[in-house]
Amino acid sequence: VDVAVIGLGLIGGSLLRALAAGGHRVTGYDADEATRDQARDRAPAEGFSVADSVAEAAIRAELVVLAVPLTVLDDVLGELAGFDGLITDVTSVKRPVLELAGKHGFRRYVGGHPMAGKETSGFAASEAGLFDGCAWVLCLEPHDTDLDDWLTLAELFTKMGARIVPVTAAEHDRAVAEVSHVPHLFAAVLAGSLLDSPLDATLAAGSFRDGTRVAATRAELIVAMSGGNRLEVGNALTRMIGELETMRDQLESDPDQLLPYLRAAGGVRRNWPQVPGEPARIPAVAETLLELGRAGGWITAVAPNRDHVVGIRPETDRNSS
Amino acid sequence: VDVAVIGLGLIGGSLLRALAAGGHRVTGYDADEATRDQARDRAPAEGFSVADSVAEAAIRAELVVLAVPLTVLDDVLGELAGFDGLITDVTSVKRPVLELAGKHGFRRYVGGHPMAGKETSGFAASEAGLFDGCAWVLCLEPHDTDLDDWLTLAELFTKMGARIVPVTAAEHDRAVAEVSHVPHLFAAVLAGSLLDSPLDATLAAGSFRDGTRVAATRAELIVAMSGGNRLEVGNALTRMIGELETMRDQLESDPDQLLPYLRAAGGVRRNWPQVPGEPARIPAVAETLLELGRAGGWITAVAPNRDHVVGIRPETDRNSS
Repeated sequence: VDVAVIGLGLIGGSLLRALAAGGHRVTGYDADEATRDQARDRAPAEGFSVADSVAEAAIRAELVVLAVPLTVLDDVLGELAGFDGLITDVTSVKRPVLELAGKHGFRRYVGGHPMAGKETSGFAASEAGLFDGCAWVLCLEPHDTDLDDWLTLAELFTKMGARIVPVTAAEHDRAVAEVSHVPHLFAAVLAGSLLDSPLDATLAAGSFRDGTRVAATRAELIVAMSGGNRLEVGNALTRMIGELETMRDQLESDPDQLLPYLRAAGGVRRNWPQVPGEPARIPAVAETLLELGRAGGWITAVAPNRDHVVGIRPETDRNSS
Repeated sequence: VDVAVIGLGLIGGSLLRALAAGGHRVTGYDADEATRDQARDRAPAEGFSVADSVAEAAIRAELVVLAVPLTVLDDVLGELAGFDGLITDVTSVKRPVLELAGKHGFRRYVGGHPMAGKETSGFAASEAGLFDGCAWVLCLEPHDTDLDDWLTLAELFTKMGARIVPVTAAEHDRAVAEVSHVPHLFAAVLAGSLLDSPLDATLAAGSFRDGTRVAATRAELIVAMSGGNRLEVGNALTRMIGELETMRDQLESDPDQLLPYLRAAGGVRRNWPQVPGEPARIPAVAETLLELGRAGGWITAVAPNRDHVVGIRPETDRNSS
């Protein structure tokens, strides 16, 4: 596949390098000249090209990967006007991007979200192996997504070692609000305790260190991801604030009332990450793939004739213990 | 100093071994026979003794360290009736224990709390080096604590490598609610998202992993520490729930409103742990020591003649960034 990667930060840069390492013809572009220069320094050794505009990068591409922030996606999609190949993206929210792609008339858009990241960012932090073993959401809208396009991307990314998770954009946005966006807000609130009390910083230990690690993420990035998914983040916050209020009431009346919830939450945490079950053949049919995703499963390979995929479900009943 | 350690779990066991390694005559006791046997297996090699009752352990001790759960402290203090030496403890809440010690008539009680821990517990997980570099609260009540007793403990524990933090029991309980107890409840609420959605477990990555790590702590232990400190935990929860509600409102009206708080919280987190300043002589006077603790400082040594201590303040203004 002939690929263009627009945006060469941590994810885009890693993708550029991984695709080149996989033998694909790939061209990158970044709006920042210094980033393009950084990438060009690596280009001869790693076998990719760097273009000077979105249009130049996309001119002979069959696939364009948009690895730019949500805030500039509208503009970049505008610069792609006339492109009739496959488009995917890597932003952490999927319904808003699906709507943007529709607004620009791109019908061959398949939303993506690799669940890979580090505290560091930028091309300098990128690496070809970033996606090995990572969960990579590929959105499948039952009546809109072209299954062949979806399978093309699933094949490309499973070959980098990613575990492809088939879900709808709406299912994705709810889940990442809970497991990624709200955790950043919780971390900030916990870290905020240090603002008024130097003593707190001295007494803080392991639970504080881990519970606040992602509070050190750039504030603009936290705002971009939670703001981009504000509806689902708001819903998740409301639910979790309710849990905290219940805990406060239980603590006041009888702390032992906390035990059942703490045991259940501790049980699912101890069983995470899930133990993968045995690989199984799964028909390459949209509803079957979505059912796999809802059950916590993923895809590790696409059959050459595309009539089935190799899927894995988590082995344990995580709700036990 | 001749020491008795009552309770030989992770903290008590580590203390037994550290004191023996430091050349002190030390006797341990645990209510659990299997734990006593485990400790006895190590006793000849490490140079401590194991007794068969609280009274036997304490019979010739100048200092008794209570390393038992808060829930049994009342009973153990009852078994110590008649002991007239120095008493300290290691439980994670200090005002309730101060009240218990008063109820039993122990005037030479100095509350302690080493901020050391692991996910694993029990004597098998104990190690003599557990306290090296750890912050260890020693409570100093301006009108009640005997300063000489306080300095005896400060000297003993600084020699194990601990950083002694002088604070009142009330200041301690507020701070640990914020940096230790509430983080456990936040972790449980974040982990609880997995209860209803197997998909969430698949999409969870680094922010979930770290934000929920301590949710795997035994539920009984979380209940014991947050229930034992329920007043301050309730206050901290109320304040932090308020911050989360503000965030939710800001997200709904204009996500950029989140930036100032996220930047401030990220700034203090990036500057944590604090950079220690230069060691300085500090007069061994209660109010001066407490002022050091409130400023985020700690003590690394006690002068032999006990007229001063060596204190360290954090170097940076952590509120900048």
